[in-house]
Amino acid sequence: MTQIKRIGVFTSGGDSPGMNAAIRAVVRSAKYYNIEVIGIRRGYEGMINGELFAMDVKSVANILQRGGTMLKTGRSEQFRTAEGRRLAYDQLVKHGIDGLVAIGGDGTFNGARIFGAEYDMPVVGVPGTIDNDLFGTDFTIGYDTAINTVIDAVDKIRDTAESHNRVFIVEVMGRDCGLIALRTGIASGAEAIIIPESKQGTAELLKRLETGRQDKASKIVMVAEGDDVGGAFEIGRKVKEKFPQYDTRVSILGHIQRGGKPTCMDRVLASRIGVAAVEALRDGHRNEMIGVIHNEISYTPFELSTKHHNEINNNLLRIVEILSI
Amino acid sequence: MTQIKRIGVFTSGGDSPGMNAAIRAVVRSAKYYNIEVIGIRRGYEGMINGELFAMDVKSVANILQRGGTMLKTGRSEQFRTAEGRRLAYDQLVKHGIDGLVAIGGDGTFNGARIFGAEYDMPVVGVPGTIDNDLFGTDFTIGYDTAINTVIDAVDKIRDTAESHNRVFIVEVMGRDCGLIALRTGIASGAEAIIIPESKQGTAELLKRLETGRQDKASKIVMVAEGDDVGGAFEIGRKVKEKFPQYDTRVSILGHIQRGGKPTCMDRVLASRIGVAAVEALRDGHRNEMIGVIHNEISYTPFELSTKHHNEINNNLLRIVEILSI
Amino acid sequence: MTQIKRIGVFTSGGDSPGMNAAIRAVVRSAKYYNIEVIGIRRGYEGMINGELFAMDVKSVANILQRGGTMLKTGRSEQFRTAEGRRLAYDQLVKHGIDGLVAIGGDGTFNGARIFGAEYDMPVVGVPGTIDNDLFGTDFTIGYDTAINTVIDAVDKIRDTAESHNRVFIVEVMGRDCGLIALRTGIASGAEAIIIPESKQGTAELLKRLETGRQDKASKIVMVAEGDDVGGAFEIGRKVKEKFPQYDTRVSILGHIQRGGKPTCMDRVLASRIGVAAVEALRDGHRNEMIGVIHNEISYTPFELSTKHHNEINNNLLRIVEILSI
Amino acid sequence: MTQIKRIGVFTSGGDSPGMNAAIRAVVRSAKYYNIEVIGIRRGYEGMINGELFAMDVKSVANILQRGGTMLKTGRSEQFRTAEGRRLAYDQLVKHGIDGLVAIGGDGTFNGARIFGAEYDMPVVGVPGTIDNDLFGTDFTIGYDTAINTVIDAVDKIRDTAESHNRVFIVEVMGRDCGLIALRTGIASGAEAIIIPESKQGTAELLKRLETGRQDKASKIVMVAEGDDVGGAFEIGRKVKEKFPQYDTRVSILGHIQRGGKPTCMDRVLASRIGVAAVEALRDGHRNEMIGVIHNEISYTPFELSTKHHNEINNNLLRIVEILSI
Repeated sequence: MTQIKRIGVFTSGGDSPGMNAAIRAVVRSAKYYNIEVIGIRRGYEGMINGELFAMDVKSVANILQRGGTMLKTGRSEQFRTAEGRRLAYDQLVKHGIDGLVAIGGDGTFNGARIFGAEYDMPVVGVPGTIDNDLFGTDFTIGYDTAINTVIDAVDKIRDTAESHNRVFIVEVMGRDCGLIALRTGIASGAEAIIIPESKQGTAELLKRLETGRQDKASKIVMVAEGDDVGGAFEIGRKVKEKFPQYDTRVSILGHIQRGGKPTCMDRVLASRIGVAAVEALRDGHRNEMIGVIHNEISYTPFELSTKHHNEINNNLLRIVEILSI
Repeated sequence: MTQIKRIGVFTSGGDSPGMNAAIRAVVRSAKYYNIEVIGIRRGYEGMINGELFAMDVKSVANILQRGGTMLKTGRSEQFRTAEGRRLAYDQLVKHGIDGLVAIGGDGTFNGARIFGAEYDMPVVGVPGTIDNDLFGTDFTIGYDTAINTVIDAVDKIRDTAESHNRVFIVEVMGRDCGLIALRTGIASGAEAIIIPESKQGTAELLKRLETGRQDKASKIVMVAEGDDVGGAFEIGRKVKEKFPQYDTRVSILGHIQRGGKPTCMDRVLASRIGVAAVEALRDGHRNEMIGVIHNEISYTPFELSTKHHNEINNNLLRIVEILSI
Repeated sequence: MTQIKRIGVFTSGGDSPGMNAAIRAVVRSAKYYNIEVIGIRRGYEGMINGELFAMDVKSVANILQRGGTMLKTGRSEQFRTAEGRRLAYDQLVKHGIDGLVAIGGDGTFNGARIFGAEYDMPVVGVPGTIDNDLFGTDFTIGYDTAINTVIDAVDKIRDTAESHNRVFIVEVMGRDCGLIALRTGIASGAEAIIIPESKQGTAELLKRLETGRQDKASKIVMVAEGDDVGGAFEIGRKVKEKFPQYDTRVSILGHIQRGGKPTCMDRVLASRIGVAAVEALRDGHRNEMIGVIHNEISYTPFELSTKHHNEINNNLLRIVEILSI
Repeated sequence: MTQIKRIGVFTSGGDSPGMNAAIRAVVRSAKYYNIEVIGIRRGYEGMINGELFAMDVKSVANILQRGGTMLKTGRSEQFRTAEGRRLAYDQLVKHGIDGLVAIGGDGTFNGARIFGAEYDMPVVGVPGTIDNDLFGTDFTIGYDTAINTVIDAVDKIRDTAESHNRVFIVEVMGRDCGLIALRTGIASGAEAIIIPESKQGTAELLKRLETGRQDKASKIVMVAEGDDVGGAFEIGRKVKEKFPQYDTRVSILGHIQRGGKPTCMDRVLASRIGVAAVEALRDGHRNEMIGVIHNEISYTPFELSTKHHNEINNNLLRIVEILSI
């Protein structure tokens, strides 16, 4: 095990609140351990194009509380090719980098896994995505902020829904994963939640609206973006068709879910994992995502971490069932 | 002029944050002047259906800071008919009401104007709408809250737009009126603003994107819902077509703009106008909307107040021109 | 084990955001299991005085997102006496109550423990306190909201501190427990954290300020209310004395930490534990606090739960050490 | 009138949210008019010490929405001396500056007035202070943000006050001026407001608490920092003494009132006045503060603008009287 002297750090894929806090933690803990840090802009694309620059503690002043990522992010088609990865490796060698911290989600770690198999470059991952869909950590950085943004929006929608006795179909992010919809549905008092992982589809929803309390002033239906029943507009259409007596509206929350100041938990999580990532490189870890499981730092090989944990918490589904009475 | 002893209060049309603060001010100032208050639910519809109930200061405890309207609101087809208005009047007489406070926007005041011409019932209006499109008041109740909700959302969108170097077309509410888009565009540092009242259409926007700074990381284009160029999706389509190099996204902010805790200014405005409405009825006013112009209470006949003030502030348009450089 | 038919629910001690969400979950899940619910106002005091009333799902409409507690809370001197507890028991019997859900902190559970030893009345506890100082749950209801309120305040203080190059001593709640100060200190990028559980006292702080980076524009020192070095004002006095060159200010955040809308996590936690509390009574549990440990429902005898877990997370202390470089 | 080619911009005195938006507007509108901009750090102190640097549109990227001031601020003893002002003037000449934009409050404009009388240097002022105590503008930049921060805090305090049936004495900023206390008192539903400008002192408050509704769950008393009855703690002491039956608490909101993201209105106001300040210098204005009166740009000589407008809005005082019934 050679000593790590200079590491590169980058963000890749969809951005999430808390990525800046993670970058700050990487830079500051590297400083603590006398390791130099090179920032890489725009993920793998910037790595290939040589968008690298030296960072010190001043580079990360006052970013802890900012949404987005100061290193910018993106997806890279070029890095999917062997040639792209070779160019990237050449840049790392050219800049004397002997370890990488990759902040992102499953796409990012897939890339890192392939790269790590081809070249002798230790890479560790920091889970930054609002989807909370990675195996190997209880929570991903950005998830807590995103779910608070959602409930803040749904609280506002509830105000107007109540005033008009309306039904709102609210679509939240989460691609193949209903974890955002599930927790925010509970927290918003949603009358129904439609997520890919549960059996509840549109038929079940329509039945629920039929048998549920008719005296309730408003109804909120939370829908995960990735549901296979056709999206919020399609669901809204069916509800309107079957229940013309309801004043039904659709709201797609969209990209506000990706931004904003990170919550306390996301900042603490990003700080912990950022420090642990630098320590992991020092300790010889590679090809692993760093996470927090049961309040302890955990290490999960990339090939496992990117397997979405689709097993949704059945206890939470039960809570929905009981409380939406 | 007979003395007012019992007034009715209701909210009608689209809800807006601060309507509750206005209801509270009406009830409490009526109490101060020893006037009884009857709450009417769901606007003109509830008036026709007899959804009336006595209110006292306890009825309005702890609502000052709540979005929505505790009296609920709605539009009434029935009230557009002479028969509907007769039924409404009968209910008012039956409950001994000798004055009305109508909280809402232009539809509400149009109804009140017709009603006031047919029956001997003094009605005064309180401007509650997020659109700020009424003549006779500098600001309507709810506008300040709505524009803060918008910039909070756009700040979040800017975080993710910056991280990805994206163009976002953001659609805000405002029907035939671009006042929400205009102020929030300035406050969000939007690169372009498309509103019905200005000449700036899609052609102008495309030119602007062409000649503007190409080094800017992200661009925000604010679009008023009521624009006649086809809505945010259509604009987004044209931008994508002409600038395939940009990563362009569309975000429709939607109903979150109607909810939420009212801002300080909206609560103060609602409190002032609520008190002034009761005092106006006591002083013999009728068929007038109460507003605040240049920090003084103003009285505007309904037939004038409902004429949208389309003359957008040209000074604000100049600010956009200068600052979006 | 007799079947539970009618339960009482109350909040006691200091209030915390999410108590309303817990009350709602208790009432709704009781309805789900066909159990009647009696609300008890003002904690043990109201129990003694007979402030009991029947609750149904409408009683808890629209409270999920509200801070405070609709049942009100307080401390009771009378309940500390055998006579007071007898009066309380008589009231419960009179109202046909055969199980109790007590929402509160250690004082509440101490009372419940004593009461449960004297009378045959099953009591289960729901951990509602911002302090997160109870044994038997990873988090208490209200803690997540409180730490977000703190970082929101400290972000604002940082804005003005940076503009003036100032040192701020910020005091947060937490009595004998530094968990609020610790997490918010990390999340706010505090330059130092003074908590009862760590060795770091004023001497250490002064040394830190001396040896730390002198080029930083501002410095934030987080202090837990319960620290034994004399409170924020005393610490501020010492810093001013030793570092007259710093423009030093003190800020006591105070009671804003107890209020506000609960965060998503607090609402979910309150919902889960509220449901579990009703199910626990049905299943014959008594004298236990319900919590969530490692994402699973846990049951901890009152006599254990009230033993503060003073073992602060040493990993978090290390993070402070590394990141405040 | 010579043409302005290069201007200096600085912030001075207490910081306020929106100062960054004003700096941005100055820099961008200067660019629009082909005027160079020199930023001056730390107000008059930095001017004397030569802390000047060239700014372009990139210098002000992404600051529109940030609290604080990127130029930093402070008070300067040296500038109060003729020698200090001579040093400052020399620096301006050395950097080829032929016009100044001073962003701050009355202290800042007093300095500018004296400087403008001694040296041939056009200076215009931008009103940046949370106090709203300047003559010549309806609102100062930062006031709207500060009052929203206050009501957000008091809403939280109300949550816990209601839960415990408590009286809270809440002290807000405002030195010799009760405008923050007055509007936030109305907006928070305060039961009493104590400000320097009104006759209402402690005696009046005690009477009010005696005769007011005893059935209200909680009472909020807003106190302006600058009141001459001894501050919130002294008032709290007297209330406790006279009303031992009340559970009375004191909360000093403090420096959170100076920070945070500016509201929409503050961003728009700062943008308008920032642009107008540059245009004023171009048009030959000097020794004037730029403001907005009745939605139009106004120009007020420094010697007038710094005379606090103590005439509090009597209409607002009446509203308090009526609504706190």
